[in-house]
Amino acid sequence: MSLRPALLACAFVLASGPAAAQAPYRSPQQILDAAPASDWRTPDPANLLYMELDTPPGAEGRIVIELAPDFAPRHVGNIRILARQGFWDGTGIYRAQDNFVVQFGDADGDDPAKAKSLGAAVTHLPAEFHRAAAGLAFDRLPDPDGWAPETGFVGGFPAGRDPEAGTAWLAHCYGTVGAGRNSADDSSLGAELYVVIGQSPRQLDDNITVVGRVLHGMERLSAIRRGPAPMGFYADPAERTPIKSIRLASDLPEAERLPLQVLRTDTPAFRDATEARRNRVDDFYKRPAGHIDLCNVPVPVRMAPR
Amino acid sequence: MSLRPALLACAFVLASGPAAAQAPYRSPQQILDAAPASDWRTPDPANLLYMELDTPPGAEGRIVIELAPDFAPRHVGNIRILARQGFWDGTGIYRAQDNFVVQFGDADGDDPAKAKSLGAAVTHLPAEFHRAAAGLAFDRLPDPDGWAPETGFVGGFPAGRDPEAGTAWLAHCYGTVGAGRNSADDSSLGAELYVVIGQSPRQLDDNITVVGRVLHGMERLSAIRRGPAPMGFYADPAERTPIKSIRLASDLPEAERLPLQVLRTDTPAFRDATEARRNRVDDFYKRPAGHIDLCNVPVPVRMAPR
Repeated sequence: MSLRPALLACAFVLASGPAAAQAPYRSPQQILDAAPASDWRTPDPANLLYMELDTPPGAEGRIVIELAPDFAPRHVGNIRILARQGFWDGTGIYRAQDNFVVQFGDADGDDPAKAKSLGAAVTHLPAEFHRAAAGLAFDRLPDPDGWAPETGFVGGFPAGRDPEAGTAWLAHCYGTVGAGRNSADDSSLGAELYVVIGQSPRQLDDNITVVGRVLHGMERLSAIRRGPAPMGFYADPAERTPIKSIRLASDLPEAERLPLQVLRTDTPAFRDATEARRNRVDDFYKRPAGHIDLCNVPVPVRMAPR
Repeated sequence: MSLRPALLACAFVLASGPAAAQAPYRSPQQILDAAPASDWRTPDPANLLYMELDTPPGAEGRIVIELAPDFAPRHVGNIRILARQGFWDGTGIYRAQDNFVVQFGDADGDDPAKAKSLGAAVTHLPAEFHRAAAGLAFDRLPDPDGWAPETGFVGGFPAGRDPEAGTAWLAHCYGTVGAGRNSADDSSLGAELYVVIGQSPRQLDDNITVVGRVLHGMERLSAIRRGPAPMGFYADPAERTPIKSIRLASDLPEAERLPLQVLRTDTPAFRDATEARRNRVDDFYKRPAGHIDLCNVPVPVRMAPR
């Protein structure tokens, strides 16, 4: 809240863990700045969607989404086909519900008379709400969570896990991308996607197929003018935000791709930065929380240093 | 996520509690629609701030904030003085940090050479991070929370409580309004206010003075174009969103006030609607969460029926 970044109180020490008790406090940013290059991964271009909004000249309209084929292989497969076909080009963001989601795709997708052709994409998919937890590296958070028996990160995505059921699923946090569906659990195709823009709607976890998360340009989606309550659909199609194109990064010339890197969540830097957020020790915070919720943990993204 | 509101599955029943087990499921909206008029309260006009943004003709620019004098009496007192003096008229929203806060007031407040006069407002206030829990009606939520020993609602505001310490405080949820400060705990005056526009930053709870919450017009604050990372302050003052005026409702003619009502949180309607959100039983949800976080519980606001 301060106008001035708070100074660090380096004489303070973390109370948790014998190693931490000996080290001076470092801010999350200091920890990230000191992380070795090997702590950062470059996402596979076949898993990156580049979305271009139709913005005024000079304004950047690019949004980058990382897809999660380990959790939603069938949906991601369909999304890749749709992107190659240019399915979303000329469609728009047709819903912006405050403190919930923006949603985009073919606004007439539910009307057989007006719906855009899905081309080579499949027209029925199974629900991919969760998957088997076995075989997944799960970087677990230390704190309890009311929504899931365990929470943590899988491949850079916030996730829940149920050891009894043996399942894992991607969580609905700020920036999570999911596949809109109607009432039937197998009614999503990946053509109609939503992005969380408010308080994490964790009640949707394991109730809908999550396909990825926004890595870049989130602030362009979150600041879109909201549609009317209660659901945020615009009454007038002219109010929609036009989408120029959505492409896979692997289908774009290298020169048009951003050098995005994501911090690996199985690294000491990620664990230490998360701990530095759980227990903040600086001039600003008077009472460290000693806790962090899954959706309060950022998974850092940066442009690769030259 | 559906384009069509899901149908209600009225044959289903709630599993929790003997009374609920006999009643058919009602959606939160159905419960609110059936609530008696006495379940709704009309906020005291002396506790309502009316903020007018300088918007294009035809667009509504009004935002209404309910102040919380039970938690921050000194800050609220100062805010009332500042509003009467027209302190904020002609200032602006000078910060919009994505997934965190918008902040408004005198952007030059920290610069003695440029700061606007505070007039009759006091220039030093004690921190009002928390208060004694004794004497407060606390409508408690049933679920555990990692940030506070107990969570619930006091006078319609989301709050935490520590029975051991005997303290209670207002929580940082979407729409919460707090008093910006520098590093010193007693460096806020209520002149510089922020509003939460993203995932609830609960780590700020009991670390800063919360003064109220937005009742109306939140979607105008949340859709403001974000300033540059990391803190969201605009580089160019022309990018700020101008504030035409901020007034107390009690200082406005009755004809200019909105007939806002807030659901009381000590009512069966509020408890039942919250339970209906904890365990959703309709065609859309396949797995009720059996849980809700403090900041996922809306405290409903409506225009009084004629």
